[in-house]
Amino acid sequence: MLSIRKPLTSLLQLHCKSNVLVQIRHASQALPQFSWEKYNVKRKNFGTIQSSDIGFFKSILDEKRVLTDENDILPYNIDWIKNCRGQSKLVLRPKTTEEVSKILKYCNDRRLAVCPQGGNTGLVGGSVPVFDEIVLSFALMNKIISLDSVSGSMVCEAGCILENLDNYVRERGLIMPLDLGAKGTCHIGGNVSTNAGGLRLLRYGNLHGSILGIEAVKADGTVIDCLKSLKKDNTGYHLKHLFIGSEGTLGLVTKVAIHCPVLPNAVNLGFFGVKNFDNILKLYKSAKKNLGEILSAFEMADFDAINTTVRNLKLPNPIADYPFYVLVETHGSNEAHDSEKLMSFLSKEMETGLILDGTVTSEPAKMQTIWNLRESIAGASLKSGYIFKYDVSIPQKHYYDLVPILKKRMGGRAVSVYGYGHVGDGNIHINVVVPEYNSEVASLMEPYIFEEVSKVNGSISAEHGIGFRKPKYIHYSKDQSALHLMSDLKKLMDPNGILNPYKVLPDEP
Amino acid sequence: MLSIRKPLTSLLQLHCKSNVLVQIRHASQALPQFSWEKYNVKRKNFGTIQSSDIGFFKSILDEKRVLTDENDILPYNIDWIKNCRGQSKLVLRPKTTEEVSKILKYCNDRRLAVCPQGGNTGLVGGSVPVFDEIVLSFALMNKIISLDSVSGSMVCEAGCILENLDNYVRERGLIMPLDLGAKGTCHIGGNVSTNAGGLRLLRYGNLHGSILGIEAVKADGTVIDCLKSLKKDNTGYHLKHLFIGSEGTLGLVTKVAIHCPVLPNAVNLGFFGVKNFDNILKLYKSAKKNLGEILSAFEMADFDAINTTVRNLKLPNPIADYPFYVLVETHGSNEAHDSEKLMSFLSKEMETGLILDGTVTSEPAKMQTIWNLRESIAGASLKSGYIFKYDVSIPQKHYYDLVPILKKRMGGRAVSVYGYGHVGDGNIHINVVVPEYNSEVASLMEPYIFEEVSKVNGSISAEHGIGFRKPKYIHYSKDQSALHLMSDLKKLMDPNGILNPYKVLPDEP
Repeated sequence: MLSIRKPLTSLLQLHCKSNVLVQIRHASQALPQFSWEKYNVKRKNFGTIQSSDIGFFKSILDEKRVLTDENDILPYNIDWIKNCRGQSKLVLRPKTTEEVSKILKYCNDRRLAVCPQGGNTGLVGGSVPVFDEIVLSFALMNKIISLDSVSGSMVCEAGCILENLDNYVRERGLIMPLDLGAKGTCHIGGNVSTNAGGLRLLRYGNLHGSILGIEAVKADGTVIDCLKSLKKDNTGYHLKHLFIGSEGTLGLVTKVAIHCPVLPNAVNLGFFGVKNFDNILKLYKSAKKNLGEILSAFEMADFDAINTTVRNLKLPNPIADYPFYVLVETHGSNEAHDSEKLMSFLSKEMETGLILDGTVTSEPAKMQTIWNLRESIAGASLKSGYIFKYDVSIPQKHYYDLVPILKKRMGGRAVSVYGYGHVGDGNIHINVVVPEYNSEVASLMEPYIFEEVSKVNGSISAEHGIGFRKPKYIHYSKDQSALHLMSDLKKLMDPNGILNPYKVLPDEP
Repeated sequence: MLSIRKPLTSLLQLHCKSNVLVQIRHASQALPQFSWEKYNVKRKNFGTIQSSDIGFFKSILDEKRVLTDENDILPYNIDWIKNCRGQSKLVLRPKTTEEVSKILKYCNDRRLAVCPQGGNTGLVGGSVPVFDEIVLSFALMNKIISLDSVSGSMVCEAGCILENLDNYVRERGLIMPLDLGAKGTCHIGGNVSTNAGGLRLLRYGNLHGSILGIEAVKADGTVIDCLKSLKKDNTGYHLKHLFIGSEGTLGLVTKVAIHCPVLPNAVNLGFFGVKNFDNILKLYKSAKKNLGEILSAFEMADFDAINTTVRNLKLPNPIADYPFYVLVETHGSNEAHDSEKLMSFLSKEMETGLILDGTVTSEPAKMQTIWNLRESIAGASLKSGYIFKYDVSIPQKHYYDLVPILKKRMGGRAVSVYGYGHVGDGNIHINVVVPEYNSEVASLMEPYIFEEVSKVNGSISAEHGIGFRKPKYIHYSKDQSALHLMSDLKKLMDPNGILNPYKVLPDEP
């Protein structure tokens, strides 16, 4: 699929959507500013790459898996929202865990910094270098190793693309427990390393629950083999969790074992217009009660989110204009039972007025149209300018509060401010679109938004992670004792700090 | 409920069952042998308790929460299966995290070893001291702090009894995501520290997925506050997982935030007789397909497991004698839909012959009778002698293989050998009952059984943990790189090794 890197213009086309490739034509094709300049970062005291280093890497990988040409490397240096840009001069494309181990051992001895990269679909600059870190791409580690269709456990390499895995297991009566807008590009290793949440967490839970085993390589090249594919294994410390969500700073995930649930016999989708956010919460309570175990997604988007997406990407909206939209998906084993539950929910809530209008479908093409609209929101505004993207968890009663507050705060400076996300998980995405990035606007938003989130005990990064963009704000969600323990773990696992530097951990006080 | 410690005879009555207190009358009321003698362990170089230490503890706790009387302390020194016995002379019963922190800081400075204890229902000797470790009991830290009934997140102290929590949330339309035979006695802090699995993991997943946040105290008294109650929070390392399943050796869990699913409107239970284990596997595949999202438990027990329980505890068996039994539970939102699914499953599989006979019920009293039978298996053989209890995960196709092999190996030495457990999770419990413990019989069983489990890539401890009994066997399920990382983490978090010594980690080579 999309495992071979493309130049920048293609890169922007690749991300964002899977089944229907959405053509993102950015207002400007200019390259983004270097991250170190834009964010005023100083290079740490790592080694610099010598020709002897290149020679070593060519001796363990074949020549064409050692990229040194500037044009070849460019896409690896830029994240897909064109926010961050690094200056790497070297990309390595290993095919095996053994190669990853040799590379890391060498880099650790030479104190060469390394930036691991999966599908490069991250939103916090975690997957691109900041200075001249060596990019270690997992794109060629894309083999499915085994699938046990009775227990549902699959073992695969870290560079497998999520959508490819989903297609593979679907043919065998299973589905992947996670689903993201970026599924056509993102790697399972990146999903695990960032603890990706996504669209169906409500039903199938998070990766700490779904990941059965992990193989990872520490900074010194040691391979940690915790690749069991058992549902229950209480033999000592649960080491795999160190690598889930630590964004490649404690070790590089090379293989995963994951539990795949049974492919539902019946899938239904409802898309509803709703008057205000209070009614969305009431609707959510009703869905939890009445749809219960078949509820697989409960998503919301406000008018501006849907309208921008419809307009910029020329996508159809299956219902009329409403202040808010709700998408409800069910996964179940019995079509008759499920559609009865969903239809009864719809008719009941149209009577109460919580739903103003809506459509319910089980036709795959129609469902795809609706999901496509929802999943395209994330990238739709790239056409309108620069997007400040926030991804926060907020206790449900305050879920939407920040959107009108930010609208007011930004006033005429913003092209638009909109909110959408996973109501069921308390996770809202807020996009603030401005004509172009400038530090004055940035300082108006940050740290203000994080302070507000902190006041209601929310999380300043629900699913995107900390990456390069947020270490200086992490204290809004983690206290000093936790930050010290993070720092201790980093020193234990990667004493030279070569793994994904400038990311996740705040500077030492 | 059962938070006040009782003398030994009562202790044996307390465990094992929750709603119906099963009277376990052990063949002998003699005290078990000291663990250090029985297993030939040497005391490590910790400090010994002086009267000045007692004085200090009395200064931070009131006097009656510092137990020094031998009779008062006895139940804390013995595990409920009467396998392990320690020699502690001091039990502390803190009420707050601050008290736990002060106790640990002091113990760490004085190098006094500490054994944390919850409900003391563990099966691998993890919750009782080996030598003179100070027992730190969580029984008085039993407050529920908050419950958000919309999101389902509950925050409580570590010493809350699981059944009390379940009763509390049920009154508010929710249930606890885990359920164990020991629920009437075990503490949520102990559940978390041992990563308890239990009866409904199949439906609600494991604790790594359900636990939203943790507050824990490190060996040096530092309080690690990761007590967020958000479903999604990707702000840095996911530290809470260090404390889930590390059995009190990396830090002591003082508070937890846990996600409680919606209380199902409809619960149904089926209990079936089955001809052989192959048919159980076929039945499991059919249940996954036909009951899908409502399947909440799929348990099996062989004839000897049920027969011993019926005979020893005088419990009724609702169906006739069969070689194997299967218990299928459903949790759903619509009684009509659920019973239609279960009845259609039953009638279909009686036609195919996979089910020989069975009963299906949604009456609470009848369901309780069946669950009671299943949950009582664990303790039923205490009357017949000493039980070697094994708790292993095995790939499903080999799930039952070990039971006939062990029967043959033990021959006339065993009173009985039987298997039962959670087919859906690949987790089988094997009980080998002998008239009394002796090292010759033990050496016939161990490490033989672990070698066999290792051959099929199973886990030598599916849910019970490693505790005191299994560190020397842990290498059958964890490789050297993982064991080194465990050792590194232990040194980082607890450099003096005062937390639950002699447990989990193997001796250094």
